[in-house]
Amino acid sequence: MSLIIVGSVALDSVKTPYGEAEEVRGGSAVYASMWSRHFCTTRIVGVVGSDFPQKHLNMLKEAGIDLEGLEIADGETFRWVGEYDNLNVAETKDTLLNVFADFSPKLPESYRNCDLLFLGNIDPVLQMQVMDYVNACLIAVDTMNFWISSKKAELLKVLSKADIIFINEEEVKQLTGKRNVFDAAKAALEIGGKYIIVKQGSYGAMAVGHDFLFFLPVYPIYKVVDPTGAGDSFAGGFLGYIAESKKLDHSIMKKAMLYGTVTASFDIQDFSLAGVKSVTRQEIDQRVEELVGYLTLD
Amino acid sequence: MSLIIVGSVALDSVKTPYGEAEEVRGGSAVYASMWSRHFCTTRIVGVVGSDFPQKHLNMLKEAGIDLEGLEIADGETFRWVGEYDNLNVAETKDTLLNVFADFSPKLPESYRNCDLLFLGNIDPVLQMQVMDYVNACLIAVDTMNFWISSKKAELLKVLSKADIIFINEEEVKQLTGKRNVFDAAKAALEIGGKYIIVKQGSYGAMAVGHDFLFFLPVYPIYKVVDPTGAGDSFAGGFLGYIAESKKLDHSIMKKAMLYGTVTASFDIQDFSLAGVKSVTRQEIDQRVEELVGYLTLD
Repeated sequence: MSLIIVGSVALDSVKTPYGEAEEVRGGSAVYASMWSRHFCTTRIVGVVGSDFPQKHLNMLKEAGIDLEGLEIADGETFRWVGEYDNLNVAETKDTLLNVFADFSPKLPESYRNCDLLFLGNIDPVLQMQVMDYVNACLIAVDTMNFWISSKKAELLKVLSKADIIFINEEEVKQLTGKRNVFDAAKAALEIGGKYIIVKQGSYGAMAVGHDFLFFLPVYPIYKVVDPTGAGDSFAGGFLGYIAESKKLDHSIMKKAMLYGTVTASFDIQDFSLAGVKSVTRQEIDQRVEELVGYLTLD
Repeated sequence: MSLIIVGSVALDSVKTPYGEAEEVRGGSAVYASMWSRHFCTTRIVGVVGSDFPQKHLNMLKEAGIDLEGLEIADGETFRWVGEYDNLNVAETKDTLLNVFADFSPKLPESYRNCDLLFLGNIDPVLQMQVMDYVNACLIAVDTMNFWISSKKAELLKVLSKADIIFINEEEVKQLTGKRNVFDAAKAALEIGGKYIIVKQGSYGAMAVGHDFLFFLPVYPIYKVVDPTGAGDSFAGGFLGYIAESKKLDHSIMKKAMLYGTVTASFDIQDFSLAGVKSVTRQEIDQRVEELVGYLTLD
């Protein structure tokens, strides 16, 4: 199966207790695609400004990612400036939308029929546009508190058509008005999705479906340097594994959780994509096996 | 194997988003023993005042708990007043030590040789006194931030002699000065213990040993009414299972984690011990089986 990822391509400036990185490669589409590429044909839909370094585009191409859907617009690239104090929650210091402000996803005709579509965390109005354009077998959606507050009606429509919903613990509580995370995830299932993937930061993630519940703690990382992109890296490994498996059932879902957890674990070990490029599929599989070992009950 | 539990026997007043309970049965020794009794002979060492209701003592006796080591002193029983806003962290409103202020554990001669000793969260000086008196095969210790700040040297001594250390995530970071929980648990192992059990509230618990790492998320409770006693209920089920198994290895440790998680899950469904009394061993086993189902990877 092939995967289309719609999301941001950005230049991030990040400060964590372990140092700083300025104007480095970032964005949900970049993080997700750099992991899904290990599993399936990956296409990006997004926009960068004319200032986006050619070497970054080359890196993505060399990684085997299809950039036909990545628009290069006049103006400056989307920028995000963030800081982490406790390595679990990012504090956004600045967001410069730039070319992203007028972004309207333009999908090549060849993208119209796709197996798996990942709508990264962007305006639900744009998410809906893409949904309407693409004939996708499976649709996965990510969102955030900002859209829950500002465009709830549009977001609910998007979620009602999704198969897989990525959302973090605070956000699923905000979305549903429930204080208990299990309760909130169940209520979210009434809105949409076959599976709700509740991300719980350093505590792992849980998958909730109709008559289905599965928990997964994180792969142990002893030095978390920069959590930026962890959620998108999770989505990349997770959806990549589903695309590779060519189907979605409870058993595939559990393994997809393992893969997402492991790809996120690689991401947080260094700033931006440092180290990510060189990780091999074999190393991913090894960590999955190791994580399974930590969970085995016998 | 038999289990001796040294800890508080208290009257708690608790407020949570679901209501209030005043002057109800509480204390670490009570919560832990009410669960361990399902698995093994359980003896309590502690103190209550002459105001402690006889019906509470009767309840413990009828539950099969040996109270020979429970002193009834002149004066008032230890009282704790607490409030929960988010159901994960208790805010202590008041602590009235009363007879507990002068508590010096008096152990009957028949308690001297014991299989398993649980030193609940009390002054490490008292914990050490008991350790010196008892010939125990296995020693489990619980502690809290208050003792880490105020009696660190004494606490380190206690921990160095323990086999199992219960500690929550923030406390293990405080104890070791590490910001990463995996790192902190490893550093704690250098202080003492064959296993460090890091409690993570609604996110579950992790067991860390030399060349051993195991995670366990919580059993899903959709309405958490009162988390008071969750940690001690965990310890009760956990240590009870070890006592019943008559040995401690990695496999027993994992099952003990399952039992502790399940006994804690019953505890938090209602105030104080409401509902706890009537839970059967069969119901505990059923929840363990259900939890295993949520974790199974196939």
